[in-house]
Amino acid sequence: MTLPPPSPAVHAAARAHAGSLAMPPGALDGLVDLGCWIAAAQGQVPPAPLENVRVVVFAGDHGVAADGVSAFPTAITVGMLHGILAGGAGVCVIARQHGVHVRVLDIGVDADPDVPAEVTAHKVRHGSGNIRVEDALTREEAERALAEGAAIAAEEIAAGAQLLIAGDLGIGNTTPSAALIAATYGAPAAEVTGTGTGLDEAGRLRKAAIIDEAIARCGDRLADPVQRLACLGSADIAAATGFMVAAARAGVPVLVDGVIAAAEATMAEAIAPGAKAWMRAGHRSPEPGLTYALDRLGLEPILDLGLRLGEGSGAVAAVPLVRTGIALMREMATLADVS
Amino acid sequence: MTLPPPSPAVHAAARAHAGSLAMPPGALDGLVDLGCWIAAAQGQVPPAPLENVRVVVFAGDHGVAADGVSAFPTAITVGMLHGILAGGAGVCVIARQHGVHVRVLDIGVDADPDVPAEVTAHKVRHGSGNIRVEDALTREEAERALAEGAAIAAEEIAAGAQLLIAGDLGIGNTTPSAALIAATYGAPAAEVTGTGTGLDEAGRLRKAAIIDEAIARCGDRLADPVQRLACLGSADIAAATGFMVAAARAGVPVLVDGVIAAAEATMAEAIAPGAKAWMRAGHRSPEPGLTYALDRLGLEPILDLGLRLGEGSGAVAAVPLVRTGIALMREMATLADVS
Repeated sequence: MTLPPPSPAVHAAARAHAGSLAMPPGALDGLVDLGCWIAAAQGQVPPAPLENVRVVVFAGDHGVAADGVSAFPTAITVGMLHGILAGGAGVCVIARQHGVHVRVLDIGVDADPDVPAEVTAHKVRHGSGNIRVEDALTREEAERALAEGAAIAAEEIAAGAQLLIAGDLGIGNTTPSAALIAATYGAPAAEVTGTGTGLDEAGRLRKAAIIDEAIARCGDRLADPVQRLACLGSADIAAATGFMVAAARAGVPVLVDGVIAAAEATMAEAIAPGAKAWMRAGHRSPEPGLTYALDRLGLEPILDLGLRLGEGSGAVAAVPLVRTGIALMREMATLADVS
Repeated sequence: MTLPPPSPAVHAAARAHAGSLAMPPGALDGLVDLGCWIAAAQGQVPPAPLENVRVVVFAGDHGVAADGVSAFPTAITVGMLHGILAGGAGVCVIARQHGVHVRVLDIGVDADPDVPAEVTAHKVRHGSGNIRVEDALTREEAERALAEGAAIAAEEIAAGAQLLIAGDLGIGNTTPSAALIAATYGAPAAEVTGTGTGLDEAGRLRKAAIIDEAIARCGDRLADPVQRLACLGSADIAAATGFMVAAARAGVPVLVDGVIAAAEATMAEAIAPGAKAWMRAGHRSPEPGLTYALDRLGLEPILDLGLRLGEGSGAVAAVPLVRTGIALMREMATLADVS
């Protein structure tokens, strides 16, 4: 069953309002289109301001990191988790600037970090399997991660979320992301595999070869999307996928960040067809898998600044542009006002 | 004499600080580079927050509009001027969102609009000549417009401006802009002429032919930049050029808006070589002359959303990204903090 999209009738009314604004037709559509999308998601013209935007950072480790797919060691994951809790991480700085709420969750970190209990309340497992040689998760774990993600989305929506962002955190996470994108769209791994946080070209090709090996290992089991998450994904990626599906089901719009979020959006659309209509892309990173997935999902990035930090940072940086689209719908004079 | 650039020593210190931030090298350079530019302009690391950003909208009419280079009649200029004063214009809405100060000035409107006296305090003339058949301005008028623009910049800087934006307003203004870009860089008019606010392809080619005619009419007089402004520009464009030159001379950074501002930046650099180092480009519009000029000036646009309203609106929409670059420099943890 396909998810219903944001209201087509309200979207049409929003477009009509946009057409009545005092400017040459389409002159600010790059911004106004975002306002129309939010209007349709909210079911009202003009849309309400986005006062409650929330990013959840899904942290986890990936067994495939042992194969050298990352320029950084796994121990960095815990350090980054603490960096977000301390408020000094990139996403925290940008979120503070825009009044965006940040929450970080240990979903699959391969350690027991010394953090408040609520940070581990949705933990699924310690690390995820090395997808080159084994499944990332059991089927049961994948289902549980999806359910945890849906529960997290429900908590954020109960807290008033008007727009949700899934951030990522965890050494090695671009490898399962590229694997899921390659497997879902039938793309050659080399075409959707990037350099992550600092591989050279030889490292990138080794990473693509590992992804090819992982996909060959799993074979026909990849046809089912939940099984695909278990075979090639990770606990954090599965949870964020469940988060996006639940947001779309609840009618809450989602801003997609980088290649990890694009893989999650890809899996959300595979599990709940129609979910992508509730999404827009915050930015284009240099990871080729991101552009590949966004093209397949029909999402056009708002920013194109070569950002590649992750944590949801690129999507949070795009939030003021979404708000500008809304402000234009709410405050700009109409042709009727000025004639 | 070449203008001194923002401090190279401070820029190097800012880059070193950027390299010490707790993230993979260069992961947020698309934002952090803007922070480093502001740091060098301010002469301090980290840079101070941009609490006082000011846009001045330079309004004027253009005699060449009588040749049908615009889809809109000249009378619209006065209506748009009132729209900005009333706060309902696009640039006003976006500026309000970001706490940016807006000022609109009648520099060359071909009417005596019923507006407060300060709006016409820097007026140079009523309209500018039809560049196809006559010079836009006398040499004396061009010099006076440059001086008025410098005086306006001085007023804005006295009011505390940390970042300045020149907005444009006036039917027909993309034609002199494209003419100045073509004449300065020796580009074929058809390559730098766009559809403005709504011409079709035949209209665009007629507009390019008018520009060719104007350039041929002026001949060798175009070699001198002030004379070029008199021959092909307008009072509002010459004033905004003087505004940019004065900002660069005073060490205040400038965010360039669309094709009109790109023509003004082009002329500012021609009059005061080195001025471009004080500029960044807010966005890329669909006008080919903008991309042509930015390439020649070595400016990379921050946004690329197809915006084409003018008024400074695209540059104002990019202000939060500049602020993000500064916030990252100021607030993000360093590797030393987290190790």
